[in-house]
Amino acid sequence: MKKILIAALFTGLAVLLYAQQPPKPSVVYTDAFSLRLIGQVFPLKKSYHRIDTAAYADFSPGIKKLFTNGAGLAISFKTNSPRITAKWCVTNARQYDNMTPIANKGLDLYIKRNGKWEFAGVGRADAVCNEFVIVQNMDRTAKECLLYLPLYDEVKSLSVGVDSGCQISPGKDPFPKRVVVYGSSITQGAAASRPGMAYPARLSRALGIDFINLGLSGSGKMERNVADMLATADADAFILDCFANPSPEQITERTAYLVKVIRAKHPDAPIVMIQSVIRQSGNFDSTVQRLVERQNENTLKEYQKLKKEGLQHLYLISGANLLGNDHEGSTDGIHPNDLGFDRMLQVIRPEIIRILKSNQVIK
Amino acid sequence: MKKILIAALFTGLAVLLYAQQPPKPSVVYTDAFSLRLIGQVFPLKKSYHRIDTAAYADFSPGIKKLFTNGAGLAISFKTNSPRITAKWCVTNARQYDNMTPIANKGLDLYIKRNGKWEFAGVGRADAVCNEFVIVQNMDRTAKECLLYLPLYDEVKSLSVGVDSGCQISPGKDPFPKRVVVYGSSITQGAAASRPGMAYPARLSRALGIDFINLGLSGSGKMERNVADMLATADADAFILDCFANPSPEQITERTAYLVKVIRAKHPDAPIVMIQSVIRQSGNFDSTVQRLVERQNENTLKEYQKLKKEGLQHLYLISGANLLGNDHEGSTDGIHPNDLGFDRMLQVIRPEIIRILKSNQVIK
Repeated sequence: MKKILIAALFTGLAVLLYAQQPPKPSVVYTDAFSLRLIGQVFPLKKSYHRIDTAAYADFSPGIKKLFTNGAGLAISFKTNSPRITAKWCVTNARQYDNMTPIANKGLDLYIKRNGKWEFAGVGRADAVCNEFVIVQNMDRTAKECLLYLPLYDEVKSLSVGVDSGCQISPGKDPFPKRVVVYGSSITQGAAASRPGMAYPARLSRALGIDFINLGLSGSGKMERNVADMLATADADAFILDCFANPSPEQITERTAYLVKVIRAKHPDAPIVMIQSVIRQSGNFDSTVQRLVERQNENTLKEYQKLKKEGLQHLYLISGANLLGNDHEGSTDGIHPNDLGFDRMLQVIRPEIIRILKSNQVIK
Repeated sequence: MKKILIAALFTGLAVLLYAQQPPKPSVVYTDAFSLRLIGQVFPLKKSYHRIDTAAYADFSPGIKKLFTNGAGLAISFKTNSPRITAKWCVTNARQYDNMTPIANKGLDLYIKRNGKWEFAGVGRADAVCNEFVIVQNMDRTAKECLLYLPLYDEVKSLSVGVDSGCQISPGKDPFPKRVVVYGSSITQGAAASRPGMAYPARLSRALGIDFINLGLSGSGKMERNVADMLATADADAFILDCFANPSPEQITERTAYLVKVIRAKHPDAPIVMIQSVIRQSGNFDSTVQRLVERQNENTLKEYQKLKKEGLQHLYLISGANLLGNDHEGSTDGIHPNDLGFDRMLQVIRPEIIRILKSNQVIK
């Protein structure tokens, strides 16, 4: 009885406190297509796909499907709203067992402060269609915002909500120069904990350049038709992080074509090959260990052959120590976790900066 | 037609290669209860619960439920099998949106090599009952293994599989001394990418001491009945990482009781209070930011009062810089990702080592 009385008292207090607070303003939604979508290598009209796969009929069904995923896409907008919410729908595709639903199907918001992009909040996904308050209780100054789309699902619709009476408008393109990153599931973002933690996104924010995410989970195998498409991209540099998916033999067969078809269309653009991350499942599994060794041996041989042929502005970053040496840098023995990605960035970021500087892509 | 012919050729080749390989031996399963379960503060008979909640009838239903989760529990065994598999069942409880299914409901295997515990492989979970090859293609030397249980679900059954003809037997207890870690969801392991990456598990492997995980997601609020239970633990030290869940007022009301009831039963055991991790959602949300500031202010005041009263072997680790300063150390604005946990360990690990050494818990 005493407990019930106390509970009633607390409930009464809560009601009182609630009644004393000013009512929250209602949320007004804006379709994200009327804001600015960034991250597409060939800008598409009203589509959250990375590539218009209808234009590439000969791509495999698996590759087409993966190009509908939102990895690397983001909405740039400005608002003075103290609260930012989102409503979005993805597909009923399965939740991957090595990713958080936030990374797989959710959203990730960054806001610019003192010239730096800083994490503000996430959109949590637990259904096909979701609505979530990403951040609230902010001051009312105008802010530049970047809302990252899900890494491993297709966005069917997206609206951004702000408090009624506040402004929202398209942002500028924060990353005028572009580097195409072609690769594997690791490029696509498996297994970062949220969309903004995929390593190309982290490079974009750090360098102020759009590292366009063309990671293709399990399917970054340097097929000729994909290579031909990559070569037509309007980009200042190319990163080839695609040596984890092909067999060692495919690396030998396909690397030269990929590099040369890009070089033919971009005579001076730096092309950076990154050897495969060492698979942590190969820590005890000798078959896996040997496979990655052979992939990386053949990648090195192809690089050396191309250099010997006189190919300029071609670089290789070693995969030897990308995840550190304590074997804790993966989620599942294959894909880096955020710790592994951070270690990888500590190796590749200064190398990439050095290469982009020496080629006058950045100052 | 040509494509079909090529496909047929490749299929034929695969069949040929497969036929040439020796057939894999069958897998023989051993119920994990006949191996060695570690990580329980009070050892239970044939139960993968952390606490026998039937013995604590007055705990809240939420706390009872959380104590059935496998966080910090592991199976210690020895085997010379080149392949290790597992069959296990969890519950149909929901998958959390800020965790990978591997961390939430899966398994994580470590093997000792040159005196160090090293990652070997995971058990991926995509159903209530799962079977998975955790590692294979290993050499046939006898190995000490530690198989971590799911962080955020209850294990209903678990069997470990090895190749027929190989041995499997209970391992020794690898961590003879014990430190009880009582706390929040962060203690329990949200949002590490896999079970072995929860920070108490990382401390155990680094220090060779069992850091018993008594993290209670959202419910680590220092209730008196929980405090009374903690005080009865047979432990060499206590870590109180429980200042993220209670309100600032509850911290003021409850901290002294918790510390003193432990001290009464353990006159010389070090008690280490860790202030709350700064919530990254408070990076722009001023209400969240202020809440954590008040939690940590009140935690500091309680620590200072207790020191002033003459309480010995009591320590405080500041929460000021546990996740670094770039705001990238969280999965969801609240819970550290593996990068955040690694930064947290870089701060707390040397502090904990210093405290345990100065109290002769370790040499």
